[in-house]
Amino acid sequence: MADQEIPALLRVLNGERLDPPPIWIMRQAGRYLPEYRELRTRAKNFLDFCYSPALATEAVMQPLRRFPLDAAILFSDILVVPDALGQKVWFVEGEGPRLEPLIGQETWSFGDSEKAIQRLAPVYEAVERIRAAIPKDIALIGFAGAPWTVATYMLQGRGGDKDDARMEVYRRPEDVDALLDVLVETTAQHLAAQVRAGADCLQIFESWAEGLPPLIFQRVIVGPTRKLFARVRELGVTVPIIGFPRGAGSGIGAYAHETGVNALGVDTQTSAMEVIEAAPEGMALQGNLDPLTLIVGGAALEKAARDVLNDFRFVPHIFNLGHGITPQATPENVERLVKIVKGQV
Amino acid sequence: MADQEIPALLRVLNGERLDPPPIWIMRQAGRYLPEYRELRTRAKNFLDFCYSPALATEAVMQPLRRFPLDAAILFSDILVVPDALGQKVWFVEGEGPRLEPLIGQETWSFGDSEKAIQRLAPVYEAVERIRAAIPKDIALIGFAGAPWTVATYMLQGRGGDKDDARMEVYRRPEDVDALLDVLVETTAQHLAAQVRAGADCLQIFESWAEGLPPLIFQRVIVGPTRKLFARVRELGVTVPIIGFPRGAGSGIGAYAHETGVNALGVDTQTSAMEVIEAAPEGMALQGNLDPLTLIVGGAALEKAARDVLNDFRFVPHIFNLGHGITPQATPENVERLVKIVKGQV
Repeated sequence: MADQEIPALLRVLNGERLDPPPIWIMRQAGRYLPEYRELRTRAKNFLDFCYSPALATEAVMQPLRRFPLDAAILFSDILVVPDALGQKVWFVEGEGPRLEPLIGQETWSFGDSEKAIQRLAPVYEAVERIRAAIPKDIALIGFAGAPWTVATYMLQGRGGDKDDARMEVYRRPEDVDALLDVLVETTAQHLAAQVRAGADCLQIFESWAEGLPPLIFQRVIVGPTRKLFARVRELGVTVPIIGFPRGAGSGIGAYAHETGVNALGVDTQTSAMEVIEAAPEGMALQGNLDPLTLIVGGAALEKAARDVLNDFRFVPHIFNLGHGITPQATPENVERLVKIVKGQV
Repeated sequence: MADQEIPALLRVLNGERLDPPPIWIMRQAGRYLPEYRELRTRAKNFLDFCYSPALATEAVMQPLRRFPLDAAILFSDILVVPDALGQKVWFVEGEGPRLEPLIGQETWSFGDSEKAIQRLAPVYEAVERIRAAIPKDIALIGFAGAPWTVATYMLQGRGGDKDDARMEVYRRPEDVDALLDVLVETTAQHLAAQVRAGADCLQIFESWAEGLPPLIFQRVIVGPTRKLFARVRELGVTVPIIGFPRGAGSGIGAYAHETGVNALGVDTQTSAMEVIEAAPEGMALQGNLDPLTLIVGGAALEKAARDVLNDFRFVPHIFNLGHGITPQATPENVERLVKIVKGQV
């Protein structure tokens, strides 16, 4: 493959510095798009939507038709893993996910990892369809939730603060470790299956890295993430993996050096200078525009976007937000952002 | 005053290292104590409770009767400042504070700082009564919310995520600056009045330092805090000031070096090593036991408490939590903690 045929995103993940940097947007297929809101009504619930290869593919295509983005990401949810492991998962419209919580149950038992992967066949079919539908120069990102983040939902049964999950680490440390081990194995197989189906690279969402005492951060985040990546490699996966430990604070250094991650997603709060210093030299960095600027628009968006470009100009950089785009953002502001990043305005 | 008469807390704030370190607990007068819950019923709402010097003094005394703590903190609330500035403030039982939000109002106008301080006379009377009621070797801490944290409540009208307040920084930066200036002036006078009434030192609660892009952190936290401390000094205050920028992450370095703060409150997520490196040499550090360990108790509490003692053993250290104690904590666990810290078990 000639250099110009390798998607820009993969070139940066391999350590190249591109100007302009490639851009994609976390949750780029989502509720800020009217066509997505329309599409969403075609499935009776969110999990059905995720498990429909046709709907998931169409959702992925929508932002690509509007904006010249450099990557697509599988349309799915981090909670398909507990669902496939046999835990009851549902979504309350306007509120978020609900699960039958593990906390309060005397023994925690889970389905078999291999059976879970069989149940997730529609996800891999979606990956195949998406890869066939998008141009070759657009990278397709597969993804999963990190073990601790998925475990917090499984433990608590919902989002919000993660105090109850953290207390279980004090109360039942061995049981939490065992839960994380199940998630490591199932998630590794889930990621490997996405790569076999055509994903060009992977992203791991550690959405709840924040607020943990440093020793617990090591135990539930750094350790299991290292195991996960080792297992993914053992399963024959060679594509680059982006880790996004949102809210890790100064834990970002340990995460970057000790897990085997290939690139770092940078959250809104983290400064470019700090992450450039904390990460191994030459590691690709992805981020970190404040998503609220895509609601506000105008001069605030312009300035913030140019600041991000400037802050990361000397390292391999993938332009993205520091957190997922919100439903209140406007497609017009996203269009403007992509033009700014591509140097077209 | 001979050395042994100077409260241990003040000696550490002045740079001395004590073994065992002094200990107090954020929200030590609070809902985890049955006698507090009983006392609370004697006022019809929470602000009335705060404005009653008799009730506030009794609330402060309660934990001191149970535990040999080294400091008392004024019983009050950070929202007495907007209340005194004429914004409507009330508390919804079990939910938290509510204010008539500034967001949505075309112009933001506030009462006069000096009149606000006159309205806060009962707070200063409480300080006098508390100082008279507690032993000389127990330090009395005065406090206020930091400008940005108080501003988030004034802007949004409630707690929860601070996205709407942050968007106002993009949308109406000059108006937010003006609001912060009003809070700097009123808070400085509020703190000076507490010191005149007998407070031995001060703590500033920046409860919402988290999640801000670094440039905004500088604009709404570092800048206004520096102005606040300069103004407090201008008003003749010489006592030490502890700043607690919860969730500041790597912003802790700028906060420690650029605001004029004398000591740092360290949150649960921040590692001792990191804050010792980030702070000026010899600065007193306060924290940072995970408050959830006071719910869990047992071996988890024991280990976590000894880890904190160990982590801060080479610096001037005040033992505290990394966040306020929760209503679910037990007095028995607090008693155990104080014994561990004092080397009695």
